[in-house]
Amino acid sequence: MTPSEEGRVGGPDAEHPPGEGSGWRHLDTRLLHQGDFLTLCQDRVVRPDGAAGTYDHVVTADAARVVALDGDGRIALVEDGFYLLGRRVLHLPGGGIEAGEPPEEAARRECAEEIGRRPGHVQLLTVLHPLPGSTAAATHVFLATGLTPDRRAARDATEAAMTVHWTPVEEAVQAAVSGRITEAGSVVGLLLAARLLPGAP
Amino acid sequence: MTPSEEGRVGGPDAEHPPGEGSGWRHLDTRLLHQGDFLTLCQDRVVRPDGAAGTYDHVVTADAARVVALDGDGRIALVEDGFYLLGRRVLHLPGGGIEAGEPPEEAARRECAEEIGRRPGHVQLLTVLHPLPGSTAAATHVFLATGLTPDRRAARDATEAAMTVHWTPVEEAVQAAVSGRITEAGSVVGLLLAARLLPGAP
Repeated sequence: MTPSEEGRVGGPDAEHPPGEGSGWRHLDTRLLHQGDFLTLCQDRVVRPDGAAGTYDHVVTADAARVVALDGDGRIALVEDGFYLLGRRVLHLPGGGIEAGEPPEEAARRECAEEIGRRPGHVQLLTVLHPLPGSTAAATHVFLATGLTPDRRAARDATEAAMTVHWTPVEEAVQAAVSGRITEAGSVVGLLLAARLLPGAP
Repeated sequence: MTPSEEGRVGGPDAEHPPGEGSGWRHLDTRLLHQGDFLTLCQDRVVRPDGAAGTYDHVVTADAARVVALDGDGRIALVEDGFYLLGRRVLHLPGGGIEAGEPPEEAARRECAEEIGRRPGHVQLLTVLHPLPGSTAAATHVFLATGLTPDRRAARDATEAAMTVHWTPVEEAVQAAVSGRITEAGSVVGLLLAARLLPGAP
């Protein structure tokens, strides 16, 4: 269930009701702010110790991150300005999954938009929770191969300054190990790929 | 600078002003909601393409996650109920860094509180940004060794049902690789530890 502005609603996600199975009990959800990308909710809860309380949390789209490997043993890294970090940031292609879009299709779409290649094969490496105390949002991490050129997809306006760096596997993995790459989904994707790919450090 | 309730302020973090170096320009910051753990801000910005807009973002404490390795080659995993995921979650010990607390000291404190051991040696493995499009918050990931019993530190009320599992290195790493562990900082900590520790898969 999507939070509505009509006041208290059942919960941020009917498929995975908060509380159940965790020892916490969910009473109701109040919408504090609904933005284009972030929604802030405040739930009334009963904590595991039986005390009544509130729990503020963020509802935002799940994301996909993709280790896109070409036939020459190179991985696509993209670099873009991240407003909140105040610098250009190197990371794997990826982004928010659209409403109703399967994660694997989001991975294919993001590759087309950001690196101009569409994968022939996509393999799920893992599903992460980046900040599970603050948001239930998940990041689906994929390995994509069989890339073919696809220049039809367009970047959005905020991605106009994005650059693509086709990087040898060992160098890309080293960027994740050394701390040059800090975005969590990208670090996990590269470290898991390193365990699968021949020649990776 | 901490956002205040007095209206528009300079920015969420004077050390790392948002915008600068990213191609985005920060105009001002408005506080939308201040909670105990999450603060929601709305910045007026100029986007890289020159268009005016707003950028909603979350201000929350940085975190520490710790791969705590004992003398028998076992890593401490903790399990606790996560309200938003609606289930018990296996992860590395760790949590929010307190105001003014060095990340390394937070790592030591969290070990004492959650696993009843204080590390003799703490090594920074990497610094992550779990959701850099939504929050500037960082997670500092450590390897801790030389553990000695410390039962003085107490868990907080929300951690009363936490259990500790001393897990052989290979099994803990496998839990990160297989997707059994999903919390991003824990997955990265275990995958980086696997590259350092003899006998890890």
